[in-house]
Amino acid sequence: MERITSRKNAYIRHLRQLAADGAYRREQGEYLCDGAKLLEEALAGGVPVSSVLWKEREEAVQGLDGAAQFTAPEELFDYASPMKNSPGPLFTVKLRACGKPARLRSAIVLENVQDPGNVGTVLRTANALGVDAVILTGGCADPYQPKTVRATMGAIFRQKILRIELPYLKAFLDDMDLPLYGAALDEAARDVRGVDLKHAAVAVGSEGRGLSTELLTLCREKILIPMQPGSESLNAAVAAAVLMWEMTR
Amino acid sequence: MERITSRKNAYIRHLRQLAADGAYRREQGEYLCDGAKLLEEALAGGVPVSSVLWKEREEAVQGLDGAAQFTAPEELFDYASPMKNSPGPLFTVKLRACGKPARLRSAIVLENVQDPGNVGTVLRTANALGVDAVILTGGCADPYQPKTVRATMGAIFRQKILRIELPYLKAFLDDMDLPLYGAALDEAARDVRGVDLKHAAVAVGSEGRGLSTELLTLCREKILIPMQPGSESLNAAVAAAVLMWEMTR
Repeated sequence: MERITSRKNAYIRHLRQLAADGAYRREQGEYLCDGAKLLEEALAGGVPVSSVLWKEREEAVQGLDGAAQFTAPEELFDYASPMKNSPGPLFTVKLRACGKPARLRSAIVLENVQDPGNVGTVLRTANALGVDAVILTGGCADPYQPKTVRATMGAIFRQKILRIELPYLKAFLDDMDLPLYGAALDEAARDVRGVDLKHAAVAVGSEGRGLSTELLTLCREKILIPMQPGSESLNAAVAAAVLMWEMTR
Repeated sequence: MERITSRKNAYIRHLRQLAADGAYRREQGEYLCDGAKLLEEALAGGVPVSSVLWKEREEAVQGLDGAAQFTAPEELFDYASPMKNSPGPLFTVKLRACGKPARLRSAIVLENVQDPGNVGTVLRTANALGVDAVILTGGCADPYQPKTVRATMGAIFRQKILRIELPYLKAFLDDMDLPLYGAALDEAARDVRGVDLKHAAVAVGSEGRGLSTELLTLCREKILIPMQPGSESLNAAVAAAVLMWEMTR
């Protein structure tokens, strides 16, 4: 196991850039994860862990075949880590190309959900409730940035994630035979309790602005989670959770 | 309107302590809020705003009767604010004593939910879905700390919040004629879809450890949100949202 002592070390610079730069992640085909619990989940799920940086560790860990192991003193580890005061380890995982799935029974579509915590929580919820795919469109937070990865609590390793730009979304969903419903705070929207969402895709927009007009025109129908007067909105991850619960209930 | 220029100013110190110190908030009977949108919601809701600190403002704002108004240069404002780069304003709101309610039709109970974002999101969701009260027990995040307040998106001004310690919880709920159900990842727990939660209290614990044994013994029954194999948990605010949706659906 290599002991790293310099901030200028190429691997340390690699980790920092993986944390900060989405284009670099895609170019390298790798992303950064943090914590022993997540590492356990990655290994249990057969996920390709490519390297591990331990915080102040003497010996390499057995059973991490194929993963290069490094150690660094606390100060340098903290420099490499996007988290404050993380007990570590940091590790990198290979991005797997997610080809076009043969079949989807359900999907949640996020449009312009920018908060990484919300995107991560939606991935976690979709995975727990059994929604087949999370489709990201428009300006969503990168699912492979550290804050999103952390919020998924390991679902990032298991959940099917597709990035589909708006012009291609309708053809894709038609091909999967999934009608699209759009969550909207709108008088014309139908109460979600009266809509059969068993075999469907449901779109949720940003908390501030909701779904774009372009996306809404692709929808079979607008649907609404009924709320008390005076309460204008739910957190995006909560709205998505209630809708996914209705889809799988 | 007074223009403040020193970090030693008593009002600046008051704001900083309100942000940081729960005991001080209770002693002063006041808490701190941030942002123009929240201030609008407070005024619209008839909430007692006691003071406002503007960032670099020339003239006091009309229609803020009873609220002392201050202004500070950017650097000093940022020093007073618990948020980074907030456009402001900061304002203080009087805590209102929440006496024992005459009647509750529904309540969500949080035990040891320590993340302020989760507690705030539960308050927001309860308010939107029409759950009468949020009851906090054990070591939950303070609902009046800045991060919680921010996550409520204004629901803090409208939602009934009760703090009831565990030894008093059962008597309180009995008095309200509300049976208590506990969310548990447990083979003995009943699928929530088969339980009538229309007139009930439902308890949710921390993500890591779930509900305490002490709380579970108070429950009529354990209930479960069914999940996919391999997914061991939902975010606490998401679990609470699904349960509140079932309570009010």
